[in-house]
Amino acid sequence: MSTESQVRADDRAHVFHSWSAQGLIDPLPIEKALGSHFWDYSGRKYLDFSSQLVNINIGHQHPRLVAAIQEQAAKLCTIQPAFANDKRGEAARMIAEVAPANLNKVFFTNGGAEANENAIRMARLHTGRHKVLSTYRSYHGSTATAITATGDPRRWPNEPVAIGVVHFWGPYPYRSPFYSENEQQESERALQHLRDTIVFEGAGTIAAILIETVVGTNGILVPPPGYLAGVRALCDEFGIVFIADEVMAGFGRCGEWFAVDKWGVSPDLITFAKGVNSGYLPLGGVVISDEIAETFRERPFPGGLTYSGHPLAVASAVASMQIFKEEGIIEHARMLGDDVIGPELAKIAAKHPSVGDVRGLGVFWAVELVKDNEKSPLVPYNAAGKDAAPMNAVAAACKEKGLWPFVHFNRIHVVPPCTISVDDLKQGLAILDEALTVADSYTTG
Amino acid sequence: MSTESQVRADDRAHVFHSWSAQGLIDPLPIEKALGSHFWDYSGRKYLDFSSQLVNINIGHQHPRLVAAIQEQAAKLCTIQPAFANDKRGEAARMIAEVAPANLNKVFFTNGGAEANENAIRMARLHTGRHKVLSTYRSYHGSTATAITATGDPRRWPNEPVAIGVVHFWGPYPYRSPFYSENEQQESERALQHLRDTIVFEGAGTIAAILIETVVGTNGILVPPPGYLAGVRALCDEFGIVFIADEVMAGFGRCGEWFAVDKWGVSPDLITFAKGVNSGYLPLGGVVISDEIAETFRERPFPGGLTYSGHPLAVASAVASMQIFKEEGIIEHARMLGDDVIGPELAKIAAKHPSVGDVRGLGVFWAVELVKDNEKSPLVPYNAAGKDAAPMNAVAAACKEKGLWPFVHFNRIHVVPPCTISVDDLKQGLAILDEALTVADSYTTG
Ligand SMILES: Cc1ncc(COP(=O)(O)O)c(C=O)c1O
Ligand SMILES: Cc1ncc(COP(=O)(O)O)c(C=O)c1O
Repeated sequence: MSTESQVRADDRAHVFHSWSAQGLIDPLPIEKALGSHFWDYSGRKYLDFSSQLVNINIGHQHPRLVAAIQEQAAKLCTIQPAFANDKRGEAARMIAEVAPANLNKVFFTNGGAEANENAIRMARLHTGRHKVLSTYRSYHGSTATAITATGDPRRWPNEPVAIGVVHFWGPYPYRSPFYSENEQQESERALQHLRDTIVFEGAGTIAAILIETVVGTNGILVPPPGYLAGVRALCDEFGIVFIADEVMAGFGRCGEWFAVDKWGVSPDLITFAKGVNSGYLPLGGVVISDEIAETFRERPFPGGLTYSGHPLAVASAVASMQIFKEEGIIEHARMLGDDVIGPELAKIAAKHPSVGDVRGLGVFWAVELVKDNEKSPLVPYNAAGKDAAPMNAVAAACKEKGLWPFVHFNRIHVVPPCTISVDDLKQGLAILDEALTVADSYTTG
Repeated sequence: MSTESQVRADDRAHVFHSWSAQGLIDPLPIEKALGSHFWDYSGRKYLDFSSQLVNINIGHQHPRLVAAIQEQAAKLCTIQPAFANDKRGEAARMIAEVAPANLNKVFFTNGGAEANENAIRMARLHTGRHKVLSTYRSYHGSTATAITATGDPRRWPNEPVAIGVVHFWGPYPYRSPFYSENEQQESERALQHLRDTIVFEGAGTIAAILIETVVGTNGILVPPPGYLAGVRALCDEFGIVFIADEVMAGFGRCGEWFAVDKWGVSPDLITFAKGVNSGYLPLGGVVISDEIAETFRERPFPGGLTYSGHPLAVASAVASMQIFKEEGIIEHARMLGDDVIGPELAKIAAKHPSVGDVRGLGVFWAVELVKDNEKSPLVPYNAAGKDAAPMNAVAAACKEKGLWPFVHFNRIHVVPPCTISVDDLKQGLAILDEALTVADSYTTG
């Protein structure tokens, strides 16, 4: 059997895949990856415009990051969380250094879901309250509380599993839930909606407001000016913990260390994963304010996991942050958004009737596709089978030309590695431009 | 600043530790580890009788496992779960090969908590029922559903977070909840109690029974003969999914690949983590029966995570399983239990009035300490401060002589790496023997 057939056979016989009907998928075997590209076994090369699951911010197989992992593997792969470890402390210090000033402690987890689970637990114990407010159109992970906080019915199991979560609506200027006419109005009305929700849920029952600083998978929804500061003010007014989920938005994706920096806002807890080490090893965590850390100075925090602060994982975070600094990756990501993706997508929007909206920052952009002038989505929400055909056709046109796109609902996200070269980026955008003519063919004017 | 001071300073300033009051701990900085030992920065060498958190089954820094990680790091650190990957398929196949015959698919997670979360979700969707029965005296992880299933109040957050879990009592011959006089009676009565609980909860509402095959942290409670087969029979009778949590008990710990092999029982789902790759990278998962996999053939499974089947993590599992086979580690673990730990602990029990019970198999043993002939635990349940003094004194006596013990409640667990040499093991047991004279001094006869 060829290697490819063996990979395929093992996969089909033994691997149970996330979020899938196991008999209806045909996972493509990938042989290798480097920088902004990966290859299948037939030698087809794909430009990675999805950064895998928007995690490989530093690009594939960065040689210095690989070397740092190899070096730490030789030294010490693991030691349990109760001990102190050089890389664990160094990673925590480096993260605290780039986080807002009053966030100085880090609780490490293996990924984003666990980060949100623990952040919510901290907020509940800190406030003595139970409810968590989170938005529709969000993703926070797949464990019980994280999936319940998630605002995407496609992700929910059939029955309730956790308690205490209430959903509200966040700002979305292009399809305003508040009938706003501009960004400022959207911000004000979204804050009024949040205030009303707090008051009618009972402010004294609410432990936390959990939001993605910039909503990722559910639409790259960039908060309009004033919104995040308004959320901060509401949290202060009502004694609520502000949790910013930056699992996808953090560590370069928005052209900042943390996306909140863009708006100068300081949450009480920031959850992270993905970009912190580009997923070279599983790693996530919570950055904790001094005030919340103080709550757990003499009172034990009831939460933990075998691999909290896993030495090999945190060593990769240390190396990744060093590389980010030395290679100016944050600045590069910001430049790509300002000078390349923004302007190019504006041109694409002007040209294609199927493009209803483009939005984003850094290397975190969405192209929202519509079928008419009423902004009707090109495909229905959670479309499957024939209904999903238009988006599948666009995706196929991208892949055909060697571009691996990130597709969600009626959107294509432009989320390549933060390290992508301007040339590769322009080439990818050109392929996308061409593929969108396929989307145009489904529009009805 | 010396390296040690730097490690300590970073840790105290920036690392938020699992399960702890952050101001009341003083984490020991560990410099290096090899085989069954680790060293602090003053050069003190400890024999690891805890295997960290009972995960480093293969021992620290196994050179072939380190090399395999380095090799895979050079090749491909990560690729997203929707693709097929050589090591992902190979790891899944190898796990299926050592699992009971009808368990052939593997859903990979980052650790044990996520494994249980997903197993429970599968069981609920497979049965269309909601409740999960799990035992008091258990640990299943710290995310919302896993912590709710956990049967240890010390671990619970202050308020309910997930729904649908009911606790029952498992067998515990030494302190029988059923007033049994022997193991057979304990098995029968525990099964009757489980049957009664099923009937009175309403069999048609119960999705799963989740038990640790051998209860780990909460006591190394080895199921008496007939118990697991009885649980299997009850599950069959009532259409309930049998989930065996082998996060701690699996992969060599019990001298078997999976602990259920010891009793020839085949659950519907087995959750694993820890020993699968000795925690060299974060990895866990669920092994899935053909019947349950079939449920998700055309119906999507609503669950996932960014790092499901993480290439570097699964590559370490492949290498670890190969090493287990080639170095006979399962057989070695079994021999250590049968020929060394069992007989030596029997001698220790005979000698020390503080030793109420010893029990276990493989390299998975508990020494339960009591203060009198009425089996009164040497310290109260969840003792802290002064109440905990006797156990702390025993632990200190072990550490003083270079043995790092695993202490829980009124027990010392003997859980060294599965690869420990007979000499090291005997030396460790001799230190424990000596330290137990400290425990004896707290007995009241
Ligand atoms: C914003 C956000 N939060 C949380 C998560 C969950 O992270 P993980 O998949 O590592 O559990 C994700 C994953 O995509 C995410 O995008
Ligand atoms: C039996 C059992 N299940 C689940 C877990 C949770 O695993 P993790 O800490 O990797 O989430 C543990 C951890 O000790 C365990 O012992």
